[in-house]
Amino acid sequence: MTNQSAAGTHATLSRQELASIDAYWRAANYLTVGQIYLLDNPLLREPLRLEHVKPRLLGHWGTSPGLNFIYAHLNRLIRLQDADMIYICGPGHGGPAMVANTYLEGTYSELNPDISLDAAGLKKLFRQFSFPGGIPSHAAPEVPGSINEGGELGYALSHAYGAAFDNPELIVACVVGDGEAETGPLAAAWHSNKFLSPVHDGAVLPILHLNGYKIASPTILARIPTDELRSLLIGYGHEPLFVEGDEPAEMHERMASTLDEAIQKIRTIQDAARSGKRPAGRPNWPMIVLRSPKGWTGPKEVDGLKTEGFWRSHQVPLSGLADNPDHLRLLEEWLRSYRPDELFQNDGSPVAAIRATTPTGTRRMSASPHANGGVLRKALAMPELGPHAVDVNKPGAEKAEATRVMGGFLRAVMQANEAARNFRIVGPDETASNRLQDVFEVTERAWMEKILPEDTHLSRDGRVLEILSEHTCQGWLEGYLLTGRHGLFSCYEAFIHIVDSMFNQHAKWLDASRDIPWRRPVSSLNYLLTSHVWQQDHNGFSHQDPGFVDVALNKKADIVRVYFPPDANTLLSVTDHVLRTWDRINIIVAGKAPAWQWLSLDQARVHCEAGIGIWEWASGSGEPDVVMACAGDVPTVETLAAVSILREHLPELTVRVVNVVDLMTLQPQEVHPHGLADREFDALFTANKPVIFAYHGYPWTIHRLTYRRTNHANFHVRGFNEEGTTTTPFDMTVMNGLDRFHLVQSAIDRTPAAHANGAGLKQMMQARLLEHHDYIRAHGQDMPEVRDWKWTAP
Amino acid sequence: MTNQSAAGTHATLSRQELASIDAYWRAANYLTVGQIYLLDNPLLREPLRLEHVKPRLLGHWGTSPGLNFIYAHLNRLIRLQDADMIYICGPGHGGPAMVANTYLEGTYSELNPDISLDAAGLKKLFRQFSFPGGIPSHAAPEVPGSINEGGELGYALSHAYGAAFDNPELIVACVVGDGEAETGPLAAAWHSNKFLSPVHDGAVLPILHLNGYKIASPTILARIPTDELRSLLIGYGHEPLFVEGDEPAEMHERMASTLDEAIQKIRTIQDAARSGKRPAGRPNWPMIVLRSPKGWTGPKEVDGLKTEGFWRSHQVPLSGLADNPDHLRLLEEWLRSYRPDELFQNDGSPVAAIRATTPTGTRRMSASPHANGGVLRKALAMPELGPHAVDVNKPGAEKAEATRVMGGFLRAVMQANEAARNFRIVGPDETASNRLQDVFEVTERAWMEKILPEDTHLSRDGRVLEILSEHTCQGWLEGYLLTGRHGLFSCYEAFIHIVDSMFNQHAKWLDASRDIPWRRPVSSLNYLLTSHVWQQDHNGFSHQDPGFVDVALNKKADIVRVYFPPDANTLLSVTDHVLRTWDRINIIVAGKAPAWQWLSLDQARVHCEAGIGIWEWASGSGEPDVVMACAGDVPTVETLAAVSILREHLPELTVRVVNVVDLMTLQPQEVHPHGLADREFDALFTANKPVIFAYHGYPWTIHRLTYRRTNHANFHVRGFNEEGTTTTPFDMTVMNGLDRFHLVQSAIDRTPAAHANGAGLKQMMQARLLEHHDYIRAHGQDMPEVRDWKWTAP
Repeated sequence: MTNQSAAGTHATLSRQELASIDAYWRAANYLTVGQIYLLDNPLLREPLRLEHVKPRLLGHWGTSPGLNFIYAHLNRLIRLQDADMIYICGPGHGGPAMVANTYLEGTYSELNPDISLDAAGLKKLFRQFSFPGGIPSHAAPEVPGSINEGGELGYALSHAYGAAFDNPELIVACVVGDGEAETGPLAAAWHSNKFLSPVHDGAVLPILHLNGYKIASPTILARIPTDELRSLLIGYGHEPLFVEGDEPAEMHERMASTLDEAIQKIRTIQDAARSGKRPAGRPNWPMIVLRSPKGWTGPKEVDGLKTEGFWRSHQVPLSGLADNPDHLRLLEEWLRSYRPDELFQNDGSPVAAIRATTPTGTRRMSASPHANGGVLRKALAMPELGPHAVDVNKPGAEKAEATRVMGGFLRAVMQANEAARNFRIVGPDETASNRLQDVFEVTERAWMEKILPEDTHLSRDGRVLEILSEHTCQGWLEGYLLTGRHGLFSCYEAFIHIVDSMFNQHAKWLDASRDIPWRRPVSSLNYLLTSHVWQQDHNGFSHQDPGFVDVALNKKADIVRVYFPPDANTLLSVTDHVLRTWDRINIIVAGKAPAWQWLSLDQARVHCEAGIGIWEWASGSGEPDVVMACAGDVPTVETLAAVSILREHLPELTVRVVNVVDLMTLQPQEVHPHGLADREFDALFTANKPVIFAYHGYPWTIHRLTYRRTNHANFHVRGFNEEGTTTTPFDMTVMNGLDRFHLVQSAIDRTPAAHANGAGLKQMMQARLLEHHDYIRAHGQDMPEVRDWKWTAP
Repeated sequence: MTNQSAAGTHATLSRQELASIDAYWRAANYLTVGQIYLLDNPLLREPLRLEHVKPRLLGHWGTSPGLNFIYAHLNRLIRLQDADMIYICGPGHGGPAMVANTYLEGTYSELNPDISLDAAGLKKLFRQFSFPGGIPSHAAPEVPGSINEGGELGYALSHAYGAAFDNPELIVACVVGDGEAETGPLAAAWHSNKFLSPVHDGAVLPILHLNGYKIASPTILARIPTDELRSLLIGYGHEPLFVEGDEPAEMHERMASTLDEAIQKIRTIQDAARSGKRPAGRPNWPMIVLRSPKGWTGPKEVDGLKTEGFWRSHQVPLSGLADNPDHLRLLEEWLRSYRPDELFQNDGSPVAAIRATTPTGTRRMSASPHANGGVLRKALAMPELGPHAVDVNKPGAEKAEATRVMGGFLRAVMQANEAARNFRIVGPDETASNRLQDVFEVTERAWMEKILPEDTHLSRDGRVLEILSEHTCQGWLEGYLLTGRHGLFSCYEAFIHIVDSMFNQHAKWLDASRDIPWRRPVSSLNYLLTSHVWQQDHNGFSHQDPGFVDVALNKKADIVRVYFPPDANTLLSVTDHVLRTWDRINIIVAGKAPAWQWLSLDQARVHCEAGIGIWEWASGSGEPDVVMACAGDVPTVETLAAVSILREHLPELTVRVVNVVDLMTLQPQEVHPHGLADREFDALFTANKPVIFAYHGYPWTIHRLTYRRTNHANFHVRGFNEEGTTTTPFDMTVMNGLDRFHLVQSAIDRTPAAHANGAGLKQMMQARLLEHHDYIRAHGQDMPEVRDWKWTAP
């Protein structure tokens, strides 16, 4: 592979290779600038005039030449090695660069035939960028080969590792911008290499791109002393290889030889691990530090101010073209500096030398099936639910820990898909705490650092990923799903808010992907939220927040599903369902504490299929005087306890119990595909009877979902009112007025039929609350009446 | 300071010092275990029986002995150096340890006289911990000396730096747990030292506590090779000093000498910088790595399983005491291993030797006024608004960039408080992008790394803090506010979701603090959210998310305020207001683009004072046929444009314009203190007329706030429906139906008085929309009718 270079010294690139790689780079840079600036005259076949330039200049030049440089050299590597690679573009606003490369590879035109590989296509390519009705300025879903949007920064590296897990032949090149590198999620993700098996997983090649500046300031990693930076990267467990400079020919040579070195190291590591020649454990994977000027090859100075190699290159280095003929001239000079006539043929297509530098077929990073994971996705092998179900012969006769039952099922899922290695569970060190520990009977936690004799459930090939970073968990899972696999994120309910913004971005990605014909559906992102607001005996207020659902409800209706299974078998049924779905985000909220069971598996299936229903066995017959509705496991218990009390003391009252598993059924049918028709809704909730609704989360969520329903004015919702502390789950419901005693009082207050005989019962309820208050403060636990409560059939 | 040690070698601690510091540590450990386990028999004056033990064992032992060890040694340092220190307890569940220390210092009893320094107090101290009606298990607001809750992990280090900024005499000891160290926010915050001036700011002494385990797994930083860890910390810019071991006497000696070394290095750095003896720039601050066993001094084995030095120590090492007499015996042995009889006098108070090891008065870390910042807080000097106001003689005659006008005012605030150095602006590299750059006329961005000749607005003593990590920005500001200062966080609207969970935790902190009599109010946390959903010309869908307000609305009503100033002068008035408030979180949403101005400063003040009002100058007189309401700058423009169209084409229609600045006015009065009384609300919105409400964010937010109002059934809300892309602000409103043409159609549809003559106008509006659609796709900008629109007075 070593050649005589132009300068006569031993070099990696031959003269011809250097010329063609540089031509490719110039072409990509030209296409990048063209997208930002040009409406017309795409090949500069005539002098540049103002009317050729976009009226609004929107785009980001600064990061692009570096991204193009990397792309060019990765292409060389892929061709030489027949490597299977994808390119994760971390820097924000790298869109025009990524589009330029996918266009040069021909993929863009294959997927968008109107953007052809000729002058007409080029004009459209330029015009559509950051243009109304066109494409955004990030590596968004519209960009072939992308699984990471450069909009909200910080997730490139965790996405890269997610893509690499269980993809042993894949190399994920991950460009980390030095702006992005300042974010918390990115900083945490460096340690992902502690979880990557050189045997079962692919490789991640991080390329830290130091171009020195953010929007208007220097970046930290570009300004700290190089020794410190090297030390930092070694501390992250990497062997850093530096490529630094600004003279193109020298930089091409350095980058080529360094990439050769990096891939050699990767292959050596993998070969040794896979042949059993080196001890298991984490190798020091190579990584690259590319230090090159921001806005490299762009205008050096504009209006006497430093531009190339400075933050002024961040967006549009030359603006105000209508008022400033000098800027128009500079723009033309800049564009011509790439010598477009050498790069494009008469018809506007790239010259053969450039086309020859790109890989072909699915080896093109823009055409990799890994970056359009739905192409590779295979449905999970799904075991039978029956063997995992809790035996429920009658409601309220057995107790079980719902998530532990789910864990048994997940063990079976893990086992059934062991050979395929396409299912992972992620979480912040809570898999066991969340009672899913049965999965450890068939796999372990992945762990590449030292394993001590006393350690439990750690192994080199485990398929459970635990790191105390919700961001990293989320990023890994997104990367894993977007490359065609399946998974589940189990998390304490309150702390899932940590990834609110990642959830938002993923929901937007799915939403945008649906409109792109060539993007195939990927598996849904499934959350189990447990250790929830009502079960924080030893944590308290900081661990009590059921508001993630409200963030989720802001996203497009068809993307999001929210489930509140009231017991173990409904949780099983919901889990079985969500693991079969695609292109959605499914949120399941379920408790881990021992709790009463209500439905047999068959009943659970029927109930979950409907998503909502009357629990006849708990309801009086005929038209009700009051509807007691519930969503969530703890609210369901309190509702049924309240119903028992009402039945005993006010037997003349007809009470109907409605349980909601699928929160989306409450929305109007025209808003959500799961929404009940008004007629169905009214059949459950009546048109005019009081509805006492016990809800797991913030009460206004139910109002927000139901305000258009006929009977909404009669809805009285109780839920979490942000009253929390370290106490028993029952005391938590009392603090928030969601307990049986408050529910009974509300039912009496709002039900005319209960007014005549209800006064005494109301007093009794108030007395019970006082009793509870005194008892719990004296004994530190709930009074026996509550602890020993048991449902009895009517 | 150097003495002969027990072993005869040169040592830092004398025998007597060693004995007393170890006694203190044993006492703190004893108190920690007591809190977790004991209901009674607090001094073990009788044999331990089951009835002395809590019925529910809730708490976390694992991290506590290390926290106590550090506390004991910091106390020694404070006494010897008369140092001004606070202790940030990063590890989760460090509550019982922190409480133990503050009790030994006497502070706990001073603040809670019923928890006296005697046997009776001890019993109450033990009982209240993790007990209903008692205190939580984290270093929550209830813990004296705390400004960081160990509930949601990751914010210790950014809080520590926030406390140290502009506090030159303060040393913030910050214990970072090795679990917490895996989180993104913590990982990002290490680089905070790039912003800390050795001249103007205090010092942060990070103490990375490696106890090796999280809930059920090893931690990354404890398992990577020590060389890698050292390299990582050097890479963070620190000089790490290691204290490793488990033999108490040796560890005491090592910790004492290492802390002496660390403080010496800090003093040397500060002296050199403050005397001008060393070149300005970032020094390599010392830090400590403490490697000690998890659950140190606790049971070595339980039921044959390794417990001390393993994750089984995480919570309650001994449980099931009622069923297992052996565990009860082990618990008693464990407690007695601290030799309580040597530690507490007959009356239960700590022996004199222990009391003598603690600092006194406000030098006690638990009594530091810095950790109860309201004590130190001084109101900002507030400049006059007048000089910064936009001249508005009539509505819609001038354009201005609202946030640029705000920037002028912030410059004046910065200047007026220059000597006090108690006001900071934080943000992720967006101060200038958000048009607040005028502040750079009076201060700069803080920056301790190299400064190049071409750099702009970087300096060693700047009071603007920019890092591309919203988490770090938020953590810094929280730390700054909680230690008694003032500030503002300016952020792109969509990306403030990145700190949703930090917002939640801070809101909970403020909420809990209000119930603690000795906590004094701190300045409000103020957000400016700009570059908002309607102004993403060159960013697109990933940058479009107005949902942070919905997260905020879930918190306790009196903590949160949300403002939508419609123009520059209202933004000025709101800014002036929020900077004077305390114990709140104020969210201001305002645009940065040139936009029409509506109100003079005087009118703005009146409007903001009311928070909502009829804009008479834009409304017809008398009872309206339709109310056109708006909240947000862009919705206000579209509403007024719609009103213009209605006025021109349906002059017989009486239209009322209601503008909402303070979103909380919409809530019922009993829900929020700013909520309008129903009578007032009905006076604005009528009892039965159609209300077309143009809202900045998700439309259901308005429904959620107003569903109890008389006229709610007639509210038709338009807002952001998650339809976004890269396009013009006006096109964005069209995509979401919030534009003038849609608003006019809605008004006609819902207003009976408009039906007769409205059909033609509706058709015209549809034609306009088609025209818009064609024009923008052809020209890449809005049609002249929209670009040149101007309000004209009726």
